[in-house]
Order: sequence, then C-alpha cells, then structure tokens
Amino acid sequence: MNHLHTFSATEIVAAIASGKTSAQAVAEAYLEQIAIREPEVQAWQYLDHDQVLQQARTIDAQHANGASAQTPSTSYPNFSGHALRGVPIGFKDIIDTADMPTEYGTPIHRGHRPKIDAACVALTKHAQANVFGKTVTTEFANRFPGKTRNPFDPARTPGGSSSGSAAAVGAGMVPLAVGTQTTSSTIRPASFCGVIGYRPTWGDMRCHGVMEASASLDSLGLFAHTVDDISLLRDVIVGVPVASVPERDVKGLRVGVAHQTVWNQCDASTQAALQDCADRLATAGATVSVVPDTAFPVDFGLLEDAHRWVSSYEFARNRRWEIDHHWDAISTFLRENRIHDGLTCSFETYQAARSLLERCRLQMDRLFAEYDVLQVPAAGGEAPIGLSSTGNIVFCTSWSALHVPALSLPLYQGPNGLPVGVQFVAKRGNDQALFAAAKAIMQAAGQRR
Amino acid sequence: MNHLHTFSATEIVAAIASGKTSAQAVAEAYLEQIAIREPEVQAWQYLDHDQVLQQARTIDAQHANGASAQTPSTSYPNFSGHALRGVPIGFKDIIDTADMPTEYGTPIHRGHRPKIDAACVALTKHAQANVFGKTVTTEFANRFPGKTRNPFDPARTPGGSSSGSAAAVGAGMVPLAVGTQTTSSTIRPASFCGVIGYRPTWGDMRCHGVMEASASLDSLGLFAHTVDDISLLRDVIVGVPVASVPERDVKGLRVGVAHQTVWNQCDASTQAALQDCADRLATAGATVSVVPDTAFPVDFGLLEDAHRWVSSYEFARNRRWEIDHHWDAISTFLRENRIHDGLTCSFETYQAARSLLERCRLQMDRLFAEYDVLQVPAAGGEAPIGLSSTGNIVFCTSWSALHVPALSLPLYQGPNGLPVGVQFVAKRGNDQALFAAAKAIMQAAGQRR
Repeated sequence: MNHLHTFSATEIVAAIASGKTSAQAVAEAYLEQIAIREPEVQAWQYLDHDQVLQQARTIDAQHANGASAQTPSTSYPNFSGHALRGVPIGFKDIIDTADMPTEYGTPIHRGHRPKIDAACVALTKHAQANVFGKTVTTEFANRFPGKTRNPFDPARTPGGSSSGSAAAVGAGMVPLAVGTQTTSSTIRPASFCGVIGYRPTWGDMRCHGVMEASASLDSLGLFAHTVDDISLLRDVIVGVPVASVPERDVKGLRVGVAHQTVWNQCDASTQAALQDCADRLATAGATVSVVPDTAFPVDFGLLEDAHRWVSSYEFARNRRWEIDHHWDAISTFLRENRIHDGLTCSFETYQAARSLLERCRLQMDRLFAEYDVLQVPAAGGEAPIGLSSTGNIVFCTSWSALHVPALSLPLYQGPNGLPVGVQFVAKRGNDQALFAAAKAIMQAAGQRR
Repeated sequence: MNHLHTFSATEIVAAIASGKTSAQAVAEAYLEQIAIREPEVQAWQYLDHDQVLQQARTIDAQHANGASAQTPSTSYPNFSGHALRGVPIGFKDIIDTADMPTEYGTPIHRGHRPKIDAACVALTKHAQANVFGKTVTTEFANRFPGKTRNPFDPARTPGGSSSGSAAAVGAGMVPLAVGTQTTSSTIRPASFCGVIGYRPTWGDMRCHGVMEASASLDSLGLFAHTVDDISLLRDVIVGVPVASVPERDVKGLRVGVAHQTVWNQCDASTQAALQDCADRLATAGATVSVVPDTAFPVDFGLLEDAHRWVSSYEFARNRRWEIDHHWDAISTFLRENRIHDGLTCSFETYQAARSLLERCRLQMDRLFAEYDVLQVPAAGGEAPIGLSSTGNIVFCTSWSALHVPALSLPLYQGPNGLPVGVQFVAKRGNDQALFAAAKAIMQAAGQRR
C-alpha cells in the first residue's frame, strides 16, 4: 500500500505535475481505502473500480501527450485543463453524470442515467479530476436518510442531506467531494464527519444539472480536509484562474460571536467548545466581540419560518411529476412534512417570505461592516446516535436563507471523541476573505483532535 | 371543420366543463389548424397527431369518470385537477418532457428523451392540459435561429428565442404556449407574432427541468391571445387557486411613459404608435406622465452591459459539457459571442455586475411608488425581413435584468400591416395588478388591427 491516500488534493496535483506519481497510483491508493472503509461507512451510491482505474489511465495518457487542451476552448485562463489532474472526487447523487447513474436518493429514479454531466461535474472533469462515483444523498436531498453511516461511529448518522459526500471525505475515501445545501446539508454533515464543509455565496456556482430542491436557496457545497483544497475546488467550479488563499494574520481579524440565536439547542460541551474557540482567537490577537441582538436584521427571528415556506413552496412544485406518478414511492416523512407544507402554502405567504429574506440579506450586508466573520455553531454537538434521523437542521437555516458564505471547521471533539465543527460565516461575496480568515483561525485555534 | 380553434383557453375550459364539447373535439379543431398553418410556419419541433388525440381521449375519459383526482395530493386547492382541461398547449423545446423528445435547439441533443417532465409541464398536465408538442427554440435558447417563420409573413423572423411558442399561438395552432425569457425571448417574439407575451416576476415560476441559460435571469414566459388566458396559465404554473383577473378602470391608472432609453432604436411608426397609445390612455382617464430620467436607478444605463456579463458568465459555465464534447456542433455565432464573452469574463466583473443588478432592482421598487405601470417599447417595429436573425434584443434587456413582470400587448400594426406590441412593466411581485391594468389598457387603447 502506498500513502498517496494521505495527500491532500493540492499535494496530489503537485506530485503528479512533478512526475513523482500518477493518476493511476493515486486512484489505486484511494481504491484501497475504499475497500477498507466502504463496507462499514456505505458512502457510495455508485462506484465502479474498473471505471475509476480506466479514467486514471486516460488522465495519465493525456498528461504524457501534453494533451491537456481537449478543445479549442481550453485556451481561456478561467479554465485550467489540469488544476485537479488525477484528484479523486465524489459527487452527491442529485448531481447529473453522463457516465454514471443518478438516482436522487429515491427508488423512483433507480438506474436513471442522465444525458449530460451537470455543469460542476463537467468543470471538474475539464480540470482532469477523476470522478470516482456518486455519493449517497437523502431522498431528494431532503431528510429521509440513505444508507450511509458516520465514519467515526457506524451507529451514528453522518448528517444529511449530503451524507455520502461528507462521510466519503471523512473516512478518507476521497480528498474532495461535492454536495449541496438548501438548509444545512453541507455544514451539518461536515461537522458530524470531521471535515471542512463550505457553502459558497448563493449564486456563485452553477446548479445546471443539479436536482432543484428550492432554487431560491439551493447551492452546491464542498467537502475537503484543508482550506487550500476547498479553495482549489471552488476556483475550478466557479470557473476562474486557480489562486492561492491569501495569507493573513489572525491579529486584527474582527470576529463577531453570534451564538445567541441557537445557543440553547447546543449541548454543554459544544457551548464550551465555542467559548473556547472565541477565547483562543482573542488570545491570538483577533478582535473578538459578541454581536449585539440589535445588530441583526430586525426580522432575524422570522428567518427560520420564512426559509421553511420558501423551500417547501418551491420543493413541492418541483416534485409535481413524482407526486402525480409515484406518490406511493415517496417517503411518508417527506410527504407529510416538506411536501405537505409546500402544497398548502399560499402564494401570499410564499411571496412575503421571499421579500423578508431579501430584506434581511441587505441588512446583513450592513452588519458585516463591523465584522470580518461571525462565529456560530455548525451543529448542536456530536452526530446523534441512530440512523433514522440526520440531525438538527436549525444551526444553518438562517445563514442559508441569508445567502452568506459559510465554512464549518473541524476544530473540536465532543464527549465521545467525535468531531464537532465550528461555523464561520462572512458577507455575501467575501468567500476568499473567509478562506483566508479560516486558515488563520485554524492555526490560532488549533485542532482539538 | 368546427370553430373550436377560435376559442380562448378560458372558453375551452368552460365549454368542456358544461358538456358542450370535448377535449377530443378541441384537439381535432386545432390539429386541423396545424395541418393548414404548420407547413408554412414551422413552429413545431415535435408534434405527433395520434399522441395528441390519444391524450384528448384520456382527458375525456377521466372527465366522464369524474376522476380528476389522480393522486392523494389532488385535494390541495392550490392545484386544480381541471383548470386547463382539454386545452392545447405547446412547450418550448428547452423544457423537458418525459413523453416527447427535448432537443434544446441543437443537433447535439437530437432525439434526447428526458426521464421526467419539467415542473411547469407536470403542473399543466396536472390541470389536464393537452400538451400538443414541443415548439422550436433557437440554439440553446440563444440567438442562432431555428426553422420557424413569422405567421404573418414567412419571409420574416418570428423573433426568438421562444420562436415556435410565439408563432404557434400567433398562427392559431394552440391557444397557449410556454417559452422562456433570459433577455427578450418572450416579449420580442410576442410583439412580432401578434400575441400577448408575459414574463413574470423573476423567481415566481419554477424552472426545474428547464435548460439553464443563466439562472440569475432565466424565467418562463407565457403566450396567449387574451390576458385572461395568460392569468389562467400563470395560476396553474405558479401553483395557486385559479382566480379571475380583477376588474379595474383605466381611470386613475398611473402610467409612466418611459421611452427614452431605447427610443432612437424604434422606427418612426413605432414611435408614433407608442405616442398614440399614451394619448389614448390619457384620453381614457389614465394619469399619464413621462418618467423623468432622474427617477430611474442611477446605474440604469449600465444595465445592458451588466446583463451581458451575468448572462454570458453563467451561460458559458452551464455549457461546459457541450463545449468539451461537441465544440464543433455549436454554431460559430454562439461560440464567438455569448460563449466567448462568458469564458473570458472575470469573476470580479461578474460579481460587480450581479451587485449592480441587485442595487438597481431595489431602486426600481421605489420608482414604482409613483407609477402602476411603465409603458415601454416591446420591439423596434415589425418583425424584420430575413430568417438569419431573430431581431433586436435591446428593448427588454433592462427589464429582464430588473426582474420586473412584463406584458407585451398586440395593440398596433406597422407600415406593412404586421403586428407591433407595446410593453408594460410593473413592480416586482405585482403581476396580478399588471394583468388588471393590461385588460383596462386593451379596452382603452383598442386594438389597431
């Protein structure tokens, strides 16, 4: 066994570029990890060993021929033809792939094979990533769980809805994975699975070819072990030249501690972890202060409800075909919650909720005049025991509704030794500054594991 | 030949409900029109005579059995099981259908058959519309034209990108059709084809299953001959109880005349028509005034450019798969314009353009404190001669960018006796008030044809 499976994506790219290894050797190393971990974790909805190796050989052959330019279009600096060369990556199974099934977490679409790749898949393939397979999603990226288990304890949930993406990275089966977030489907599983989860500013990444849950809120979500890897994958999917994360000191970083909204839903150890994190940042020289209630958007307390109406209204209409043709194959949970809410919601309620969200987003932009980042919980604690629920979604709903970029950093362990993340959010559009802050924060706070 | 093909959708629904006719008789009447008009107009990308009649018989059989309730979900008042019973309708061929091909206006996807219906298709089928077929779109809903000709003069363009949808309604081949609008793809062809075109407030109608051109700007667009029909179809697709358009008098309607931005791109007869329309509305008692330049958003003049960067940036990334796999099958025009612009656009330019659009939308909301509707050109004049261009897009770009609802009303004829529409736009979210105003305007302005 080689040790390439311990390399980050950034390290893999460098090693292949310098001729020290090959896409095939990398693929073999990760396939060995998958052979070891997958029987327990069950992160993959689809993965074909031979297909992965064939792709690796194709990538290596193109490299050998200097043929990273596949089309006349590859002369554009926004689109590197090698930025992810040979890097294993998984895609949540609500993201279309032309060469693999895409089943949206439901028996209704078992065996479905889309005609083309989603934009984000095509963009990573253009950069010569090795798409290993499709990762497990909850039913229609909602809350009815798939088969995946937490990589740190198979009796616990990995979180959802991007369950397989988070667990695959958490178990070391791929260095990168793509999921989505409409409510808390990236940040929550990232916290539970001990990886970095990134939800970009809403709208920055194309969702063409990704099952629409609620377009007003849907976003891709990325998983990796390092901020550099998150940034690399972000640049490829956004379609911009790959750039290093800017260096910055934690000194002078204006951290707003904004625990109040969901504090009483965090367990005691998580509250202590959050407090510890704030203390460490202050000790390291960050300007840490508690965000006063009055600084929040006036209707901040209504975001949770507004999010529910907007997401349910849109979700239910987007599922009209499945509702009419496969009602009995939809889980009772989904029918009685999200779909029922959406089918009953009036247009006036929906419209008012959308307006409220827009208003709050603008007020939030102003709040960030005072803070570079806000520190908030990513989850209430360790992944709960049991596989019938994917955990409490409340810690991310407001931030998703506000369209702000968010990162969950795997900084703590709970009382059972399982990972607990801390979430940092920034102003809309300030994703790169958030990355820079996150690197400084991880150095200053250290990793308690 | 019966005369059912002269019935509006609203009249068809009433006639079928009262037992005076059947979905089959309606289908036969419209199929006769198609047999007469289609050889010249070429509005249909896919239409199967037998399939249409089979669907009509199924609808009639369900009606006879009282079986409008197809699933447990049909008890929700937001979703009538009969609001469009037996009404023929066409869908632009970038909108997915499970029982018909969907080819996106490109040879790349010839013969493609999606797995499920787009949300808007499923919603109309749920209301028992008879989906006749797929209407011609330009290549990827951009500007390289399809085969369709103007129903009033086959030597002229029907406009684009929803060419077939507008022409099919204009030629009387269906009473309703669905298209899309990212720039001017509904309002412009509606003006050229002598029908009402409606672009809703951005975000009101789900685009799940509709090819994404540029999600920040994409919207469905509806075509019909009456405002009542537009409103009916809107209610079904938005997923709300069907309601009549509120009656209102034109007296007191606050009409802002906002010609200045594109006035010099209108020909003299269109300028005269617009002036005549404003005069007639004033005579009828509307409060008509010219919107001063200072009332517009500060950056109104930059909207055109901002729209171009946002739409190109997103479009090019959404086409990554086709670019990498079928570069040579993409038209030179599309490659050298929209795709080139998008592939070269920097993220900073894109981000700045998105911010500018958001800022202008908020300022536009405030402008509408003074006006119920703005009267603006829908096109520069009659449909131009020739089929190699779909006409000037400039008359709608800013309104699309601003996310406001818009209607093109077929009020005038140009010097060659061809239709010329007048566009009315309203505040975001005020679509129903716009419908009410439009009915009053059509009565007051009369129809000059």
